[in-house]
Amino acid sequence: MTLVEGILAGKQRAIARLITLVENRPREAVPVLQDLYPHTGKALVIGITGPPGAGKSTLVARLTRRLRQRGKTVGIIAVDPTSPFTGGAILGDRIRMQELATDPGVFIRSMGTRGSLGGLAKATHNVIRILDAAGKDYIFVETVGVGQSEVDIVKTADSTLVVLVPGLGDDIQTIKAGILEIADIFVVNKADRQGADRLVAELEMMLDLSEKEVAWRPPVYTTVATGNQGIDAVLEGIEEHVRHLYQNGQLEARRRERYRAEIMAIVEEEIKARLLGQWSAGSLEELLEEVAARAKDPYAAAREILKPWTGNGKGGS
Amino acid sequence: MTLVEGILAGKQRAIARLITLVENRPREAVPVLQDLYPHTGKALVIGITGPPGAGKSTLVARLTRRLRQRGKTVGIIAVDPTSPFTGGAILGDRIRMQELATDPGVFIRSMGTRGSLGGLAKATHNVIRILDAAGKDYIFVETVGVGQSEVDIVKTADSTLVVLVPGLGDDIQTIKAGILEIADIFVVNKADRQGADRLVAELEMMLDLSEKEVAWRPPVYTTVATGNQGIDAVLEGIEEHVRHLYQNGQLEARRRERYRAEIMAIVEEEIKARLLGQWSAGSLEELLEEVAARAKDPYAAAREILKPWTGNGKGGS
Repeated sequence: MTLVEGILAGKQRAIARLITLVENRPREAVPVLQDLYPHTGKALVIGITGPPGAGKSTLVARLTRRLRQRGKTVGIIAVDPTSPFTGGAILGDRIRMQELATDPGVFIRSMGTRGSLGGLAKATHNVIRILDAAGKDYIFVETVGVGQSEVDIVKTADSTLVVLVPGLGDDIQTIKAGILEIADIFVVNKADRQGADRLVAELEMMLDLSEKEVAWRPPVYTTVATGNQGIDAVLEGIEEHVRHLYQNGQLEARRRERYRAEIMAIVEEEIKARLLGQWSAGSLEELLEEVAARAKDPYAAAREILKPWTGNGKGGS
Repeated sequence: MTLVEGILAGKQRAIARLITLVENRPREAVPVLQDLYPHTGKALVIGITGPPGAGKSTLVARLTRRLRQRGKTVGIIAVDPTSPFTGGAILGDRIRMQELATDPGVFIRSMGTRGSLGGLAKATHNVIRILDAAGKDYIFVETVGVGQSEVDIVKTADSTLVVLVPGLGDDIQTIKAGILEIADIFVVNKADRQGADRLVAELEMMLDLSEKEVAWRPPVYTTVATGNQGIDAVLEGIEEHVRHLYQNGQLEARRRERYRAEIMAIVEEEIKARLLGQWSAGSLEELLEEVAARAKDPYAAAREILKPWTGNGKGGS
């Protein structure tokens, strides 16, 4: 059985092997990903974001269990913002997902930002693609929604849940401005805590104040994920949102956005690799030396790096 | 007085005007930035990162006040991770810096990630440059250190403070793996809270366990920023670290890293703009349509976009 066949058959080991290849030697993974591509586009991609400690992983674990009970298969990608430094991905609350780890209908992977933003976005797109080709019905992409890179990733999901909790005080104020633009569904988790009602009321008020003409007003659900409360309602909310997107042709539009982001990530990475390949390490250091000595400014230096390309008449845009 | 002259004279309004230009019409700002470049390289750039709620802004405000008492001028750049969504930058705890806002020796600016990562990194580099040319002795770059993009920014500082607080529980565990690689100095803020001693002990243990051969072991300071406690020690720590870097030639090495990141950001943005400029909106949509229909995979699409560049024989790397 080839790697492609293994993935199309949904084999956990084949999936894991290709993801590792994608992370470590992305160029070698390309032909396999190209072979898988025609078999993709069936999975529903759900973004989950929110501040640290909001209970995102627990919520994902509960949603997954419910989907499994309904006979659906699930992929979970936890994008861990801390690992750029270390290279490996450590998921703090991975332990909460352990109950799912032995289920062959669930594939869980945590991913670190080991390279650049482009690298993470591209790797995440690829892992979504792999899980999609492997036949997963639902793919959750969980991120801590504070960094641009993580947000860029969830923004391209079919449906995005923003998970908040009462009692984070200032933090909610800080993220408030932005969440409206990415949230399709709000979940107030840990709703048994004091302040949950007020948070729900604040969110509803915020929604009231925003544009009236929107076709979809994000619903606000309350959950106690640890206590398994409110999970079904959230699942129904996701389904309803996806149905709405589908009826409006927006599902395709969002996916096109995902393709666009993905293609651009590939383009960027390719450009960077090629440009740096054209400069020997030594001549790049010399250029940096000149910039450090203020003999050349960074724009002039950039222009020099670009010269092989702009010098051939293509640079007139 | 020209804009360049205004900035070199340290005029607040000139600084603000150029930063706005950098943010809104970056291409127009380039000639001014080029003129300023020879006048830069004197400021000390201090990165401040840590989880939300660690008290970074208060710490920066206290450090700034102390530096002002010593006759130093200060620039503060608060990189706000939430604003990509809204376009504007809202600094949740900006209010804590209000006391400084009327001091002509202090310039405060919060910046949002309104565009891409590259855009933010580039804009931040440019604002550092502007404040440097304006004669600021110290420039603080404050970010919430959870996203790759923000971390990339502080990593290029001359000296980076990682601010932690006791009682964040899991969160510290999650960031633990990575902070060693970016921290030059640790600050345990809100040290009057329970658990501060344990956090300090944990950090010291973590430092013990890491490579022994490092030339610089990050010191761990305790502060109560709101109560103005421990601020002088942190300032001394910064000075000591910078002295260490200087003596080892590392100050220049770090700055070269900053130039490298800056130049690459310019190069990437330029290439992307040029490549996309060669595609009409319509033909790009057609390409996306083909990818959506699975008639073409994203790699093949990327290759097509890159063709004007790779087609001229330069692409053989």
